Amino acid sequence: MISDLVQKRLDSLTKPPGSLGRMEELIVRYAQIRGAEPPRQLRATAYVFCADHGVVAEGVSAWPGEVTRQMALNFVSGGAAINVLCRQAGIDPFIVDMGVLGGPVPGALNRRIAPGTRNFAREPAMTAEQALGAIETGRQLASRDHDLILCGDMGIGNTTAATALLCAYAGCDPAEVTGAGAGLDDAGIRHKSEVIRRALALHPSREPLDVAACFGGFEILAIAGLILGSASVRVPVVMDGFITCSAALIVKALEPAALDAVLYSHRSAERGHRVMLEFLGARPLLDLDLRLGEGSGAVLALLLIQAAFRLYHEMATFDQASVSRND
Amino acid sequence: MISDLVQKRLDSLTKPPGSLGRMEELIVRYAQIRGAEPPRQLRATAYVFCADHGVVAEGVSAWPGEVTRQMALNFVSGGAAINVLCRQAGIDPFIVDMGVLGGPVPGALNRRIAPGTRNFAREPAMTAEQALGAIETGRQLASRDHDLILCGDMGIGNTTAATALLCAYAGCDPAEVTGAGAGLDDAGIRHKSEVIRRALALHPSREPLDVAACFGGFEILAIAGLILGSASVRVPVVMDGFITCSAALIVKALEPAALDAVLYSHRSAERGHRVMLEFLGARPLLDLDLRLGEGSGAVLALLLIQAAFRLYHEMATFDQASVSRND
Repeated sequence: MISDLVQKRLDSLTKPPGSLGRMEELIVRYAQIRGAEPPRQLRATAYVFCADHGVVAEGVSAWPGEVTRQMALNFVSGGAAINVLCRQAGIDPFIVDMGVLGGPVPGALNRRIAPGTRNFAREPAMTAEQALGAIETGRQLASRDHDLILCGDMGIGNTTAATALLCAYAGCDPAEVTGAGAGLDDAGIRHKSEVIRRALALHPSREPLDVAACFGGFEILAIAGLILGSASVRVPVVMDGFITCSAALIVKALEPAALDAVLYSHRSAERGHRVMLEFLGARPLLDLDLRLGEGSGAVLALLLIQAAFRLYHEMATFDQASVSRND
Repeated sequence: MISDLVQKRLDSLTKPPGSLGRMEELIVRYAQIRGAEPPRQLRATAYVFCADHGVVAEGVSAWPGEVTRQMALNFVSGGAAINVLCRQAGIDPFIVDMGVLGGPVPGALNRRIAPGTRNFAREPAMTAEQALGAIETGRQLASRDHDLILCGDMGIGNTTAATALLCAYAGCDPAEVTGAGAGLDDAGIRHKSEVIRRALALHPSREPLDVAACFGGFEILAIAGLILGSASVRVPVVMDGFITCSAALIVKALEPAALDAVLYSHRSAERGHRVMLEFLGARPLLDLDLRLGEGSGAVLALLLIQAAFRLYHEMATFDQASVSRND
């Protein structure tokens, strides 16, 4: 077993066994998923999936819908948080246009399904064909050439979609799990929760793919596909916050074994994330009150993952450093 | 106020206000301590203070006392966890010999007070002069030339010293807060707790400097001095885990205002650390079940601090990126 070999190496390094805590767990977990030791040179990549949401017409976001496009352009020109964090980690993010309003985003990977989803307060967000197309798009991006894949998202209105997915898959009450997203006040949260409650009643099927198509966003389904694809080629895939984890809910419903390939980077400040993580059985690495999305938490976790792998390769062993062991 | 200026810059960046959570808090807190914006090029430095502890004669550690020296040599030759993490962060650690058994550690900064403390189960660990000397040594290392100072420690037996300091300063029961240190079993923990209980009775004075001299280690008092010195020149100083925080207890007793300069990197797996952090009013950045010391958690936090400062300087503003604001 590769994980036994990795554990043996960890226990030979000049530190009390297990004293690097979750850094050691991470290394072992990586090896189990990948079926190989952590690489010396980690080839990580980040995909930021962008799409618009028809449900924004219901007034569920503190921000105008045009911000999806503006931020996608900001990603392409390198000015957003995700760009700065990727530079710090030494990687380049891929910006994937899954369906941003206003036509193809110049400089982004064009994988558009449609110019935004439909308003799920009135009709299903997308057709079954669109749902399968979005999932397949994500799946195609997974490749064994990457040692690690990170997910991010951008889409005004997508905490509404993610909350609806949480309620439908996990049976939560919208009043208990609806949060502020990018900055709603209490009245706004109540309204958003009510929109979700009505939509859940309008779309009663709880068949996994129906749920995904009724409430999902194209970016969320692409992330679900990326998880499925990563699992099939044994590439560990790092979730960001509330939106990317809602994609993991889809995977849990469709093909739960694929969640074995998932690493959870952080617990977000978005209200429903705690419940969502519990439902996924996840214990994320960081808890920094982030609520930005874009993959920002995933890349912060990458900084720790890079450090963990370097510890694994570069620390001296007890024998090399002539350090006595305990009994 | 510099913190108002920094907050204004943070709120002009292309993200929902506050959505970077504790990363934003960290930036504001840094500016308050330093009295300046976070620097573009962060000149951080790490000091790892090493010393031996006479109380090891009581059989309180899972590791032989000679390991302090062996690990100090490992630090000097670059093979320990702290070295690897510092390389990842792009800084060089200074190894400070405060009193390692077996004579000066070649390649370390020689600031030796004595070859280890005395056994505090029988007599005070050090004299008042030695205590003041160790504090002064740490104080001298603080300099305005650094933008950020990180602390680390090495000393077999030093969780016993730190636990005794916690009990004496915070009035805790040793049976409630004594932990496994670098790997004691339950019987070992009970014995260690009993040694501490007897020592607390043997040295009844709770005068701040008496407590530090009776139970402290030279490395712990040097860290207390480094905090005092850093506060006086307004350089933020990053604690590591249980040992460095026990130095903060000394500072809290001697000159509590100096704790305003302290940043707490992580919550350690060592049993008493939670209580210690609560007593200090601290909310650390990370919670990774680390229990290594050396400054390892402080340098992991530095990776996030570097990322936070880069976000502050490099993210585009709403105006620069032509992104709409919310109302």
